[in-house]
Formats: sequence, C-alpha cells, structure tokens
Amino acid sequence: MLLEAPVYKELFGAIEIYEVQKVIKLDTQTRDVGSFTVKNIPREDIYNILEDIAIVVPMKNEKLQLVDGVLKAIPHQCPIILVSNSKREGPNLFKQEVDLVKHFYNLTHSKVLMVHQKDAGIAKAFQELGYTDILDEKGTIRSGKGEGMLIGILLAKSLGAKYVGFVDADNYIPGSVNEYVKDYAAGFLMNETDYGMVRLSWRHKPKVGKRGLYFRKWGRVSEITNRYMNALIGEGTNFETSIIVTGNAGEHAMTIKLAEMMPFSTGYSIEPFELAFLFERFGVWENIEEYKEVYNQGIEIFQIETLNPHLHEEKGKEHVADMILSSLGVIYHSKLASNRLKEQILEDLKLHGILKEGEEPPKPRIMRPIEVIDADKWMKIVEDNAETLFKFEV
Amino acid sequence: MLLEAPVYKELFGAIEIYEVQKVIKLDTQTRDVGSFTVKNIPREDIYNILEDIAIVVPMKNEKLQLVDGVLKAIPHQCPIILVSNSKREGPNLFKQEVDLVKHFYNLTHSKVLMVHQKDAGIAKAFQELGYTDILDEKGTIRSGKGEGMLIGILLAKSLGAKYVGFVDADNYIPGSVNEYVKDYAAGFLMNETDYGMVRLSWRHKPKVGKRGLYFRKWGRVSEITNRYMNALIGEGTNFETSIIVTGNAGEHAMTIKLAEMMPFSTGYSIEPFELAFLFERFGVWENIEEYKEVYNQGIEIFQIETLNPHLHEEKGKEHVADMILSSLGVIYHSKLASNRLKEQILEDLKLHGILKEGEEPPKPRIMRPIEVIDADKWMKIVEDNAETLFKFEV
Repeated sequence: MLLEAPVYKELFGAIEIYEVQKVIKLDTQTRDVGSFTVKNIPREDIYNILEDIAIVVPMKNEKLQLVDGVLKAIPHQCPIILVSNSKREGPNLFKQEVDLVKHFYNLTHSKVLMVHQKDAGIAKAFQELGYTDILDEKGTIRSGKGEGMLIGILLAKSLGAKYVGFVDADNYIPGSVNEYVKDYAAGFLMNETDYGMVRLSWRHKPKVGKRGLYFRKWGRVSEITNRYMNALIGEGTNFETSIIVTGNAGEHAMTIKLAEMMPFSTGYSIEPFELAFLFERFGVWENIEEYKEVYNQGIEIFQIETLNPHLHEEKGKEHVADMILSSLGVIYHSKLASNRLKEQILEDLKLHGILKEGEEPPKPRIMRPIEVIDADKWMKIVEDNAETLFKFEV
Repeated sequence: MLLEAPVYKELFGAIEIYEVQKVIKLDTQTRDVGSFTVKNIPREDIYNILEDIAIVVPMKNEKLQLVDGVLKAIPHQCPIILVSNSKREGPNLFKQEVDLVKHFYNLTHSKVLMVHQKDAGIAKAFQELGYTDILDEKGTIRSGKGEGMLIGILLAKSLGAKYVGFVDADNYIPGSVNEYVKDYAAGFLMNETDYGMVRLSWRHKPKVGKRGLYFRKWGRVSEITNRYMNALIGEGTNFETSIIVTGNAGEHAMTIKLAEMMPFSTGYSIEPFELAFLFERFGVWENIEEYKEVYNQGIEIFQIETLNPHLHEEKGKEHVADMILSSLGVIYHSKLASNRLKEQILEDLKLHGILKEGEEPPKPRIMRPIEVIDADKWMKIVEDNAETLFKFEV
C-alpha cells in the first residue's frame, strides 16, 4: 500500500497525532518508490501482521446480506469477533446470524468467535469480577455499541491478539471493509509504540450516497466534532490546529495495550471520548507511576483517508442532533475545556435548537478500563456459563 | 481468494462454459480449505500472475475523481493502458487526464501507457498496415469503446502481456476495481488453455444504486440478453440452458491469444458479440487449419460473481432500448439463430415498442481480429507518429 507520507504531526504531551494520510495505491510490493512524499507499506508486511489484528464487529439487527459481505471481505488471517445484540425473539435474528456464521465458517475455515451481548454468562463474569460498569440495575449487560466493543476487546485479548480493530456490520461495500483492515495494518506498521491508534476518514460521499449526517445550517456532524476537538487541543497547547479529522471515526483500531487502559463511554460519544481521554490524561506530562510506561513510549495516533467511499445504512436524520449533542458533551465536560470554549459550545447548541436556555449537554457515561478485570478469570467464567458463545476454529 | 467450485459446466463444441462462481472470501493464503465445494486461489498465486495482466481502461470524459480512484485501485504490478477518447478542446479534458496520470505515475511508479484514441499517428499505423476496419471514411479512428478496446489490446501485446482485462473508468468503488482485477487473475489461474476468458457478474445492486438498466415490463437488459444468449446455445446443442449470466459483462478479460483471434463489434454489442462469435465458430467441430490449435486446446469461459456491488455513473434510460436492440441484434444475426428464435426476438422487440412492423434489429459492425495486423510494425509506426502516446515506466 502506498500512503502519503505525513509531512506534519501535532505533539501534545505524550501524544503524537499525525495529519491525515491519503491512500495512493491499494496494493504494492516491497519496492522502493524512491520518494519522500510517499510511504510504501509492502503488502507482504501487511499480510504478516494481519493474524495479530482481531476484528470486532458489533451487530444489532443488521441485514444479513450486509453482514455476509463484511465477513467475506475481512482478510482470512484476522480472527473475527462478532458481538451481536440482535433480537432473539419475534423473529430470532440472532439464530439466523449464527446459521450464517456457521455456513461461512464451513466454507472458509476463518477463525470466528461469536457471542450475544445479553448472554447472562457474560454478565455473570463481569458481576463476579466486580466490574458492574457495563451492567444495568438488573445486572444485565446494557445495550449499546460501546458495551459490545468492550466485550469484543476482552475476547480479542483472550485470543492473544496484539491489535483490535472495529468494523461496522452495515457496510454496503465489502471492498471497503477489506481496505479498512489493511489500512489498520498499515497504521500499525508505521506505529512505533505499544500505544498506537489508527482512525479512518473518508472523503465526501459520492452522488449515490447522501452528504453524510448533516445538521441544517451547521454542517456535517464530523466537521462540527472535529472543529471542537481541535479547539480542545488548542486549549491544552495554546496553538490552534486543524489536525483532527477523525473525531467521530467509527472505523478505528488500536493496540491491545492501549485498548486495555482506555475508559470507554457509551452511545455516540465513544469515538470522540477516546481522543478527549487521551488529551486529558497524556496531553500534559505527569509523573503517574501507573502510566510511566505510556509516558515513556508515547502514544501515536494515525489518521488514514480511505480510497474507498463509505456507504452504510442511513440511520436517519433524527440521530443527527443526538450525535452532535453527545460528541460536544464529551468536549464540554472535558477537564481541558475552558469556560470560553464551554460558552461557545452552549451558544452553538442553543443557536441550532439542540439545547434550551439553561441546559447543558449530557455528561458521557464512562466504563472503567478493562485492565481492572482479570481477563483470564473473566474468560473462564464466560466459557463455563455463556450459552451463546460460539468458537469456530480449525 | 475463495470461490465456489463450479459444480456444472456446459460443453458446446470446443467451448467449456463454467457456471457462475461466487466469491466467498477476498483474501486467502496458501492453505487447503479441505472442501470440494470451495476453490482456493492463494493470494500468492494471484500476485504472481498480475504482472502478466494488462488492464485496459477505455475513457471518454469521465469524472477525474473516478478515474483517479480506478488508477489507485488497480494492483501495482499490472501494466495500465489508458485509451482516452475525451475532449481535446473546450475544455481540453485529455490534458487534465494526462496531468492526473503524470502525477499518479510520479507518486506510484506504476507502469502506465496512455494514448488518445483519435491520435492521427495511430490511424496512420492502421492505414499503412491495411486495417481500415477501425477507420471512418475520413481515415480517422471511429469513436466507440470497441475501437478503444482494440487499440488497448494491441498496446497490451506490445508490452508482452499474456492477458488483457477491461475495466471501466466510471466506477465509484475503487475496492471493486481492485477485486475485478483479482477476479480476472483467479479465473486465469483456473484456466488451463491458451484461449481463456473471464467475465464478471454482480448481484442485485444495493439500495443506494438503481435496479440496473431496466426496460419497463420486460426486465433488466442483462437478463434479456442472457435469456436469448442461452437460447442461442440451445439452438446449437438442442439442450436448453441457463448457464450464461454475463452476456453484457463489460468487465471481462481474456488471454492475449484469444483476444488476437477475436473479431470485435462496436457499440453496445461488443460483449454479447464475443460470445456469439465463439459459439458460431467453435460450437461445432470443424476441421479448419487456421483454428486447429484452438480446437485442440479448447476455449474456457469463466463467470465470476463479484463480492462487491457495481456502482457506476448512470448512463440514463434512453440507452436501454439501444442496448437491448444491439444485444439482440447480435443474436438475431447469428448463423446459429433458427427462424423460430429470430421470430421470437422480432415479436419481443415489437411488443415492447423497440422495433416497428417490418423492421429488423441492426447487424453488428465487425472489425476483423487483430491477428491480421503485424503488431511490431504497428507499434513502430505508432511510436514514430503518435503525438499523444505517453509511456510511463521506471
């Protein structure tokens, strides 16, 4: 793969954020392109690292044809982890998914782990290990993509994966999914620390799609989130920047070591919260014993602009205001946000009719990092108790 | 790549037509999948054959962003041959294309050959070698995709390519283009003769696209063409079949040896005419010295259903009737067509208001096989005279 070499990066405490890199060629071999503006990631290197990247696909009632395409597009060596929160009655969509995955496994012998998010055995494992952050008052695992991702990370860890990447199940273009995974791989091959993250961005959607989630008179959700996320960095560094273009990037990946020490929020705020957390915690040098290794090695954040467009199921305009509110809520409630920035966010939200006078954006609900969980014990309890855990392995 | 193993094939004289094979997994390694229903084409094999496959991209005023995506998606080893028939004045789109390709070459060092279809130097080469089939009455090369393809095949031959594949320039999904080329490669790796062809088919287009070129009350163009193409085989073999699903497949590839001996038609009839020609010529065993080697080895036609959807620029409904008329014209005028089949075609065309009483569908205009041209001499004249020939090579 050929990528634009990043000419510029932003340093923010222990964090290095690389400017967005466009994909210039999907497929290349080991060969020097003899250029300083182009970074060659030989495909052999990409294929070698794939088996260490577990791909987590959170699902919820997605069309089976789309799920099928996504499974077929993930490169063969990547272990696939499906965390489904689909209906189990009226109709039992989860059973259809299990059948699809069984058939897929029989044909391809891909390594697949599958589980239902609401499996009481998983809830039991969290409960017994004292991690109630993910449970509701009844002791059931909450719905939500963040909760599914967290389960996915624990399962990835149990498989011994070094990296974990997320891919949505509602993608219309299997070729995009194939590229996303290779983009993750390319990012990790550029990454030099144990704490790396790769976030994907895409250009304008083509004619056939919509213009992206759009709030009238204001712009695309991602543009709004990025603007304020960059402002948040500005608050910390006193330098304005426009480096962040992936504030809402659902397609992203990280090293397991980074994933383990990250708290996760829920709902639409997950992706921006990851950045806000890193900025708060590592934007300034602090002498915290717990994070000594992280401060020493540093954190690298790569942003890659995919060659493929992103065509997924439209979730409808009613979610736009919610997405903006959750995303800006993360920034509003960040320790880094000055009163001036908070005022600006409130003004904007009121101006666009998302908040009323005197209201504040909601504070994100946070789940502690999974490093507080003994992953081996957790997996043991899950294996002994989960009724929906399917392990497909040669 | 994992493909469905073809359970069934149709034998028609010297031709073997394999039933359509679905792509089950885009990326796989050398590893036995231990299944009789699945065919594994290891990616290493695919990468090894790519440098022998020249990819011809006929272009005419396509959006540059789309061309850019297509170039970036073609695997690095494949030589790329661009035959442009774009405007050269008001505005000079060809110049913009040349600039784009230069930039692309500088970044990627891909092997690219580019030429303008109307280049007087190319016309001169055809003229001097007595091949006027491609010229109009003024001695200029005619417009048309078939003419562009034919030039592309000659250029591919001059590069020493063993295979030539066609890819349209107006594809919205770069990942699809990447897959198409690998599908071609997979087909050639299954092919055991010097005379092989790979034709691609795709499933229903997803919500975001249209239902494909559709003629009211009759169906999709490809369905109509396939129905009659299968009927044509039935006329020859006396057995009904539904094996052909790629009658109008614009995305297809063939061995250079097959391409050399194929006559090509023009306009929308090119792709169905290729099949009709093969059926006529090789559907019965004849003792023709010229084709002895072909009869000995046989011809293999593979049909692969891509994993990716096909999203390209909509050409508008006015072309639908034209496409049907040209496609059925090929079948109507085939030597294999019985009077009964001809009657049926006429009835259908009249019923749907495409033909009036007493009219016949047009006979396809045919260009002789390029084997009648001395390719080395042709290339020499082109190199000495063409003003638009760009050769980008490391």
